[in-house]
Amino acid sequence: MKNKGKLVIAYSGGLDTSYCAVSLSKAGYDVHAVSVNTGGFTAEEIKTIENNAYKMGVSTYKNIDAIASYYEKVIKYLIFGNVLKNNTYPLSVSAERIIQAIEIIQYAKSIDAKFIAHGSTGAGNDQVRFDMIFQTLAPEIEIITPIRDQKLTRQHEIDYLKKNGIDMSWEKAQYSINKGLWGTSVGGAETLTSEKPLPDSAYPSQLKKEGKEQVTLTFEKGELTAINGNKNRPELNIEILNNRASAFAIGRDIHVGDTIVGIKGRVGFEAAAALIIIKAHHLLEKHTLTKWQLQHKEYLSSFYGMHLHEGQYLDPVMRDMEAFFQSSQDKVSGDVFVTLKRYHFILEGIESNHDLMNAKFGSYGEENKGWTANEAKGFIKILGNQNKIYQQVNQNA
Amino acid sequence: MKNKGKLVIAYSGGLDTSYCAVSLSKAGYDVHAVSVNTGGFTAEEIKTIENNAYKMGVSTYKNIDAIASYYEKVIKYLIFGNVLKNNTYPLSVSAERIIQAIEIIQYAKSIDAKFIAHGSTGAGNDQVRFDMIFQTLAPEIEIITPIRDQKLTRQHEIDYLKKNGIDMSWEKAQYSINKGLWGTSVGGAETLTSEKPLPDSAYPSQLKKEGKEQVTLTFEKGELTAINGNKNRPELNIEILNNRASAFAIGRDIHVGDTIVGIKGRVGFEAAAALIIIKAHHLLEKHTLTKWQLQHKEYLSSFYGMHLHEGQYLDPVMRDMEAFFQSSQDKVSGDVFVTLKRYHFILEGIESNHDLMNAKFGSYGEENKGWTANEAKGFIKILGNQNKIYQQVNQNA
Amino acid sequence: MKNKGKLVIAYSGGLDTSYCAVSLSKAGYDVHAVSVNTGGFTAEEIKTIENNAYKMGVSTYKNIDAIASYYEKVIKYLIFGNVLKNNTYPLSVSAERIIQAIEIIQYAKSIDAKFIAHGSTGAGNDQVRFDMIFQTLAPEIEIITPIRDQKLTRQHEIDYLKKNGIDMSWEKAQYSINKGLWGTSVGGAETLTSEKPLPDSAYPSQLKKEGKEQVTLTFEKGELTAINGNKNRPELNIEILNNRASAFAIGRDIHVGDTIVGIKGRVGFEAAAALIIIKAHHLLEKHTLTKWQLQHKEYLSSFYGMHLHEGQYLDPVMRDMEAFFQSSQDKVSGDVFVTLKRYHFILEGIESNHDLMNAKFGSYGEENKGWTANEAKGFIKILGNQNKIYQQVNQNA
Amino acid sequence: MKNKGKLVIAYSGGLDTSYCAVSLSKAGYDVHAVSVNTGGFTAEEIKTIENNAYKMGVSTYKNIDAIASYYEKVIKYLIFGNVLKNNTYPLSVSAERIIQAIEIIQYAKSIDAKFIAHGSTGAGNDQVRFDMIFQTLAPEIEIITPIRDQKLTRQHEIDYLKKNGIDMSWEKAQYSINKGLWGTSVGGAETLTSEKPLPDSAYPSQLKKEGKEQVTLTFEKGELTAINGNKNRPELNIEILNNRASAFAIGRDIHVGDTIVGIKGRVGFEAAAALIIIKAHHLLEKHTLTKWQLQHKEYLSSFYGMHLHEGQYLDPVMRDMEAFFQSSQDKVSGDVFVTLKRYHFILEGIESNHDLMNAKFGSYGEENKGWTANEAKGFIKILGNQNKIYQQVNQNA
Repeated sequence: MKNKGKLVIAYSGGLDTSYCAVSLSKAGYDVHAVSVNTGGFTAEEIKTIENNAYKMGVSTYKNIDAIASYYEKVIKYLIFGNVLKNNTYPLSVSAERIIQAIEIIQYAKSIDAKFIAHGSTGAGNDQVRFDMIFQTLAPEIEIITPIRDQKLTRQHEIDYLKKNGIDMSWEKAQYSINKGLWGTSVGGAETLTSEKPLPDSAYPSQLKKEGKEQVTLTFEKGELTAINGNKNRPELNIEILNNRASAFAIGRDIHVGDTIVGIKGRVGFEAAAALIIIKAHHLLEKHTLTKWQLQHKEYLSSFYGMHLHEGQYLDPVMRDMEAFFQSSQDKVSGDVFVTLKRYHFILEGIESNHDLMNAKFGSYGEENKGWTANEAKGFIKILGNQNKIYQQVNQNA
Repeated sequence: MKNKGKLVIAYSGGLDTSYCAVSLSKAGYDVHAVSVNTGGFTAEEIKTIENNAYKMGVSTYKNIDAIASYYEKVIKYLIFGNVLKNNTYPLSVSAERIIQAIEIIQYAKSIDAKFIAHGSTGAGNDQVRFDMIFQTLAPEIEIITPIRDQKLTRQHEIDYLKKNGIDMSWEKAQYSINKGLWGTSVGGAETLTSEKPLPDSAYPSQLKKEGKEQVTLTFEKGELTAINGNKNRPELNIEILNNRASAFAIGRDIHVGDTIVGIKGRVGFEAAAALIIIKAHHLLEKHTLTKWQLQHKEYLSSFYGMHLHEGQYLDPVMRDMEAFFQSSQDKVSGDVFVTLKRYHFILEGIESNHDLMNAKFGSYGEENKGWTANEAKGFIKILGNQNKIYQQVNQNA
Repeated sequence: MKNKGKLVIAYSGGLDTSYCAVSLSKAGYDVHAVSVNTGGFTAEEIKTIENNAYKMGVSTYKNIDAIASYYEKVIKYLIFGNVLKNNTYPLSVSAERIIQAIEIIQYAKSIDAKFIAHGSTGAGNDQVRFDMIFQTLAPEIEIITPIRDQKLTRQHEIDYLKKNGIDMSWEKAQYSINKGLWGTSVGGAETLTSEKPLPDSAYPSQLKKEGKEQVTLTFEKGELTAINGNKNRPELNIEILNNRASAFAIGRDIHVGDTIVGIKGRVGFEAAAALIIIKAHHLLEKHTLTKWQLQHKEYLSSFYGMHLHEGQYLDPVMRDMEAFFQSSQDKVSGDVFVTLKRYHFILEGIESNHDLMNAKFGSYGEENKGWTANEAKGFIKILGNQNKIYQQVNQNA
Repeated sequence: MKNKGKLVIAYSGGLDTSYCAVSLSKAGYDVHAVSVNTGGFTAEEIKTIENNAYKMGVSTYKNIDAIASYYEKVIKYLIFGNVLKNNTYPLSVSAERIIQAIEIIQYAKSIDAKFIAHGSTGAGNDQVRFDMIFQTLAPEIEIITPIRDQKLTRQHEIDYLKKNGIDMSWEKAQYSINKGLWGTSVGGAETLTSEKPLPDSAYPSQLKKEGKEQVTLTFEKGELTAINGNKNRPELNIEILNNRASAFAIGRDIHVGDTIVGIKGRVGFEAAAALIIIKAHHLLEKHTLTKWQLQHKEYLSSFYGMHLHEGQYLDPVMRDMEAFFQSSQDKVSGDVFVTLKRYHFILEGIESNHDLMNAKFGSYGEENKGWTANEAKGFIKILGNQNKIYQQVNQNA
């Protein structure tokens, strides 16, 4: 009965996608499972997923290592833009889904699949990101979404799998965790309400260290190229920093935001590296960029985050913004000194050849070297012209 | 020789303005000292300033209590806008200077002064704020700035005062502190460099409490009307919260930013109440405002902060922005639950009748109640139209 | 069989809504026809629509005169914001639909209707505007859209009506015209392509005058209160000006823009009054507003137009923007002198008590009265500080 | 006495710079005159300027042909951004001054000049543009501005020149004209008031043609590469189009705007090519760019124009914006059909391989091919979610 043709399924190893894999195979599709590693899986976990995939009857299983591509295509620009949705959330999950969708659809095209399946429900953002990217990059491939369409209970899925010889343990964790290079999201009963925080124990990383630890982050043209002088690829540096900072339980927060489907959503997250890097990078920019670079970057970054979050990554305006960001990073090079402490971190300062805060040109609050009192008075007089004219014209009008 | 006419001096009681008071009196001006309390002075401190003012030979001394006007004219809108310059600094000093300038020039007009003097140097932002507001509101009053014009050394000023019978102790503090309702700034040797943080001891508030403390902030139409259920004027609530949170040494940071005169400046600050209130208020907004309200507020807030910082408070565009902000606060009412901890705080959640995250309409990540799978598919299909068309048109072009 | 309950239909008198009226009546609804006059109908035309409505078997017919409400709720702000979509289109049709939807749903609620019907297809913007406003203001009323659902041919509809005793002439005009207070749209074969303009004859107003005519427009706080000194309600002034300027065939253009459903759309329009008023109002603002008022208004206006066009009029952010706009108009009072000519118009100049271009403070390009050469040099020196520092720091870096 | 060292003077051949050339030579400077051709001079005019320069006693005279550099560094981006200051003015003069300043200071550096002189007054924008660019690119070269400093009358200058043997005719034209590739400005008695337009005769180009003329503009990646199929360098195409369109007296208007020094300024201009190209380019963009590209370009363009106008061309944010603009032009290729008529022009339509208005994907206002009625309903339902929730939450609150 395997005659409906090749189908690629975005497979996570969880109950939903396992159910999909089995039922789609039974329905006559030639099922090829694929998972995309954006920093959330260990080699061991991937091996387990692979083993399980074959138990579900898939023809092939493939894990795509997308960490480098994730960094190059998305994270890099989130850092350049200091993107924190609503000044809080580094878009950990939103960003991941984009890359996963792109990698999966490219894989589907490469093996000439006629169908692509994913396990998203009809309630959230992920279906939008997956569908839109799939439809845009491969309008010829049909999308199949059993979970969204059938609205099955967990028990129904478990029973179905058991009936088909899959008798595994499918306990639902108290907190749903999504781990990736740019952060880990945490959902639970509390995040379905507005009032309550997540308990400490819900976060994957627990406080392991006391005292404090100093870290020097080296940026070159906006990219994190070294930690404490040790050079590495930026994506590896993110991982290293995250491990170090997670021991201090840094980077926990809860994000409340607008979903693409118009409802408000709330999600806990833990993103030590993302938060430290963005804040450190931003500080370096405050020293090296001009006022108007900072100002206009802020406008673009805010929208870059919105569009990314809403699955509009393929809109060409994203490439235009990335061109702006890339150009803006030309002088964003230097060291940022960070101190890690329990639950929080401190930015100590920076050192950069491009630092515009340069005593040679005058020090704020101290005596000026660059201009005279009369020059300052002339500056102020003319700078105030418009408001003075406005006031005088209108007090008599 | 008192015949040059009435002169109002912005008098702080420090060496510079004391020097000005004496030398301007000697030069034949009828000197009237005024200080403006924006939350930085105790009654005792004001009494001391008054006593010293008369020692300097001024005709009158007046302290203007501007706390309520400071809140109504500026702080309220900084909260509505969640204004943090460069995502860091609550504009503690910038905001204060505006109100001080307005109060002083109004006082000068009320007593028919012909001259107005301030002690700012020619190096920084304050001269711009003072001069521009003075010139705009009273172009007929001449501005006199001995410190900016004469560039005297501290020793010269001390000697001059001594020669004129004023023999006080004028030790320079290691850290210059500017205290006000919306925060305290701290400058010192470290803030003249880019590399070094301020030492803990430089901050006025020291850690006095361990453990944690829960606080409920009640907002009505964006204004902080109660703490833990105790209703008070918002400006008093700010003070109460600040005292409570300062005991945890919350709210310290260093701001690096663009001065009006084009150089970069760095300043330490401690603003426990400002930071907690802005973050709590913003969280409440995330629950009660629409996506586009949040987005457009962000644009306006960023510029509101820039213009305020740069002394453009009297530009009528500020009134236009305030009208937007006021309108946006109509539903920003509810409680925000905050936990104070050592050096940081946690936003636990909110409760509001206007909360748009309302389970009645579907819960993010859970099953949707408001729409079907097919409706979701229709939504996504059409939402993706433009990028799909773009991709198809241009892949063949 | 009349037992399904009250249904309100947005009735235009055209083939589609006639078909709906008849078939819904036959299907057992108690059909109440309503049309909304936003400036497109004469009393005679309304009488004809009414007569036809009753022929279709409706229980009642009502024409709502929404001209004043259209002006107060939408047009006023489009003028305050100088809103031209993509710098071209005054949103003539978009704006109308909003008011029509609001008036119709309020009427439906007032008569306790259980259903509401409109004749929009599934291809365009109007369905979105109608459905969204209906669903938002009356979620309890069910929306019925036979044209969208059934995709009938014109011939089918004509035959159906004939079979039901309605034998009228339903010729399709070569150009579809939508007339309203804020402009008339024109669609035809040419606007379905990108290459061709509409022929002159497609526009409703034809050139009737040669030579030129001078008109003085008086604005008070941004509203057009008089033409050539004759005071009238602004909505009447719009009509008067439009009649006068249409004789010169002013205000024709073609708009190409993004529809809400993601495709590009092209539509001809004729909007003499709208274009003259917006340009005249904008000129008056250039004289009376500060630089930053003009700049920030531009940002908000562009988004105000986008949201309105996309049917998001009920988003509270629109009220916030309107508050900004209203505040910004405080000094936008004065006369604007316009010359009407064949196919175009010229703004001659303005006269206003609030004109900031006031020779008292110096004339651009002439000698300055307000400041000295040295003051100008001081201004320039400090204004250039940041770029100078940037250049010097980075040429050695 | 020639010992003060090399001085470069920005020499136009007019009375002011002639006075400067003579008096600076007399004062002991080694004067080198330079003029920069940004499209305003014929070869003959340059020859005349050269002859006159030597009469003034300069050591050398040089004309720099900056037309290509003007296009590449500025005009190109003004087209990409569709930049019209206050939706009116193509920044003809502002843009020119930037390039002139850059070319002159580079020349001064190349000949090791110690001084640089220009003839701007202290009243306007040009002094700011010249001084800031000179100071930024060559802080070591001293700026000398006799006209600004000495405030001489024309008669005094004429007498001085006569005394020094220069007896030329220095009649002041009734209208001051500044001609360049991107437009010609016209100033006169009328532009010093707010009320009056310039008379027709004040504009350099007079109506010479009746009837109409069709022109096809070909853009490749945003650049005007051909007119009516004849390929040429864009800067030459601008000149060709301008000559053709000026015969119809197209492109006249008056700009009112904010000067850098805070006063309002008014200036007439004639810029046929600039206006036609910007409007044609913008139309092509409306067909080829996505909604968000158009939207975000608008924000950046508005500020790009502001910063350029205010002499901030060297701020690195301008390079960042240019990177965005360049990226955005990737698909802006195709033909735009324009009809020239008396005093105005009409955009007929466009043809492009990248046209997103493509009947294949559905035609606006006609039946849709790309989606069903139910999909449209699903789209609208979810698109309206937030406002529906807002309304329901808040009507009970």
